[in-house]
Amino acid sequence: MVCLYRLQGGWPSQTIERQMVERSPLAPARFPGLPPVKGVRLGAVSCGIRDRGSPDLFLATLARGTVVAGVFTRSLTASAPVEWCRAALAGGRARAIIANSGNANAFTGKAGAASVARTAEAVAGLLGCRKREVFVASTGVIGEPLPEDKIIAALPRLHEALSDEAWGSAAQAIMTTDTFAKGATRTAAIGGDRVVINGIAKGSGMIAPDMATMLAFLFTDAAIPVDVLQPLLARATARSFNSITVDGDTSTSDTALLAATGRARHRAVASPGDPHLRDFRLKLEDLAEDLARQIVRDGEGAEKLVTVTVTGAASERAARRIGLAIANSPLVKTAIAGGDANWGRIVMAVGKAGEKADPDRLAIRIGGVLVTVNGAVHPDYDEAPVAAHMKGREIDIEVDVGVGRGRAVVWTCDLTHRYITINAEYRT
Amino acid sequence: MVCLYRLQGGWPSQTIERQMVERSPLAPARFPGLPPVKGVRLGAVSCGIRDRGSPDLFLATLARGTVVAGVFTRSLTASAPVEWCRAALAGGRARAIIANSGNANAFTGKAGAASVARTAEAVAGLLGCRKREVFVASTGVIGEPLPEDKIIAALPRLHEALSDEAWGSAAQAIMTTDTFAKGATRTAAIGGDRVVINGIAKGSGMIAPDMATMLAFLFTDAAIPVDVLQPLLARATARSFNSITVDGDTSTSDTALLAATGRARHRAVASPGDPHLRDFRLKLEDLAEDLARQIVRDGEGAEKLVTVTVTGAASERAARRIGLAIANSPLVKTAIAGGDANWGRIVMAVGKAGEKADPDRLAIRIGGVLVTVNGAVHPDYDEAPVAAHMKGREIDIEVDVGVGRGRAVVWTCDLTHRYITINAEYRT
Repeated sequence: MVCLYRLQGGWPSQTIERQMVERSPLAPARFPGLPPVKGVRLGAVSCGIRDRGSPDLFLATLARGTVVAGVFTRSLTASAPVEWCRAALAGGRARAIIANSGNANAFTGKAGAASVARTAEAVAGLLGCRKREVFVASTGVIGEPLPEDKIIAALPRLHEALSDEAWGSAAQAIMTTDTFAKGATRTAAIGGDRVVINGIAKGSGMIAPDMATMLAFLFTDAAIPVDVLQPLLARATARSFNSITVDGDTSTSDTALLAATGRARHRAVASPGDPHLRDFRLKLEDLAEDLARQIVRDGEGAEKLVTVTVTGAASERAARRIGLAIANSPLVKTAIAGGDANWGRIVMAVGKAGEKADPDRLAIRIGGVLVTVNGAVHPDYDEAPVAAHMKGREIDIEVDVGVGRGRAVVWTCDLTHRYITINAEYRT
Repeated sequence: MVCLYRLQGGWPSQTIERQMVERSPLAPARFPGLPPVKGVRLGAVSCGIRDRGSPDLFLATLARGTVVAGVFTRSLTASAPVEWCRAALAGGRARAIIANSGNANAFTGKAGAASVARTAEAVAGLLGCRKREVFVASTGVIGEPLPEDKIIAALPRLHEALSDEAWGSAAQAIMTTDTFAKGATRTAAIGGDRVVINGIAKGSGMIAPDMATMLAFLFTDAAIPVDVLQPLLARATARSFNSITVDGDTSTSDTALLAATGRARHRAVASPGDPHLRDFRLKLEDLAEDLARQIVRDGEGAEKLVTVTVTGAASERAARRIGLAIANSPLVKTAIAGGDANWGRIVMAVGKAGEKADPDRLAIRIGGVLVTVNGAVHPDYDEAPVAAHMKGREIDIEVDVGVGRGRAVVWTCDLTHRYITINAEYRT
């Protein structure tokens, strides 16, 4: 199947034909059922930015009083919408999130910033709110002027069609090279009362920490002050969206937003450490991890999901860096693609991470089998069960570096011929 | 053509069949003619570590009074020979360099260290020098015990056959996945007298700064004190072997040695900044760059040599980091493989480097053509000449980041299907 497609990055007006990849072999069976979140209405339409007729514009409206937290790419060439959101975040309030796919509005100079402002103004006019309460995200081609007129023209129609249940089409509208829509939901208890957390996300290439071509929009009906919400999101992001990597590249457009409408009734919470927030915090982290793993499952060309658990590091941060060094190593990733439990490459990757590790205490487990111990191959090491594990879809690598108590989990996928085919953009 | 081959990393005793790649399409026409270096005798034999009958053991003997400088991998899981050389370097003197291919003697625990010591003792016994004057290097499989008995048994035969002209077979003996032998020579003037600098090197995968599965042995007949030689090598290494990348991975075994026999007659030099050393310094840097570029030309699966020049950075170091961010980006490298001048991905890579850059002054040239200026596409940008340039074997990318005067050049190759095939080790 071949379809007209626009990829991340590329020429202005460049439309390339690429083989439409089928659904990732690691995709979940179906998009999960997401319940309504009180105070959130959403919808998606096709506004014509992408050539396909599928939805490319997403709008969520948020009840009065909604507070918002955000985490953005650390790229120094961040897109115009990211710069807008960073500024808007200072207000701490959100009434809408609008996102398009097909055009990243990145590296578009002053015209790009003006496009974001015009879009936000149009949404604000429709809703009767301030423009700085409108959060904007774009993903797609870099360097091409955003045709914001198409977005603005589609707004009334989109606004008309909002509902509290359009999570699936919302998740579809923000897809670019994704092969499946990504969503998740959790229920959390705050002091005995139940609140809902829903999330949708997109991302499949250019996925790396801090962050990636990744959009994640999370919504809850909990009533959480903005100065509590922000650290909760930052911590959840570190352990999820910033703990995944597909190709080590970092996008100009990464955006994770968490909107809390405050429409649920529960006891007041005043700090991130509030014991009544514990369940919410865990469920938020679990939901973010779920979405992050879905992104890795949709990694460009991915055929295997790889979970790298690092223990015994000097700190959680050091453990994450070692895990990412393993997960980003092309030699480790190609070995996994070939079904080869090449532990020598894991040793190499630990060595290059630049974090404290004791080679004489390094222990590597693959699929739960101890491969190396005390700085050399385990004397009773049996390749057979490890070789069987490497044939599967889900690969587990555990590395203990023997110097401390830091622990982190990182997810990645293998590096396959299909990654090259997708990204070398062989034109037909 | 299929041949039995051992790759970097892998199982103990693992012998894998891989498609024997022909000579890299970027290989030079022939191995250059290297003149003798007074005080250096060298040779190579097959000692049986590799299955092939080709040479796998290299020995160079150095005249009495030879001083030596060295730069090694920064990997925290460095191989036993690297640890040996680091310690031996403290003495500053060298009488021999011995190197084998086929086995890296890395992650081999205490047995590995003992193997190095036994090898050095055997060479020292043959030459009548101290064992700490023998430098040892190994490259090949990680985690397999080094059969040093094979090395020691071959020593008398190897010593017998030494000559002052065996540069080509020496360069061959240190090859692993290399598809061609790498050598270079320069003549330099020190105060009106001529000295020779010769170098051989190996490396094709796992190539990344600080450093890579890279061995480089440089020899000169100049008389240079060791405290002058070391900074000269460090600077030359920064601008050559540490400015190349194939896949961003870092080996456990990287070693660059520079031996100065002092057999040439010239005026004495006392400091790295000595004006009489200027020509020597430039020629040394030029030779190291030549060898480094040969390594990139032999990058696993390489079909294009990419030169990334970064200007306008805050410092040379910042420029190098930005250059390496571009050169290591899988998205940039796959775009080049596909012949696509995808400047959006270059913008992305600049953004992720973490070094100061001004997006509004970012200027990108591809093949000499100005593509972006002042943070957006050049208004008169014409794709045709750039598309033609991208079809060639040598790709030039120039990026000015608009904040200072720092400049660096970095070399890499494209990321192709052949890289995946080589490294995924599809077993037949």
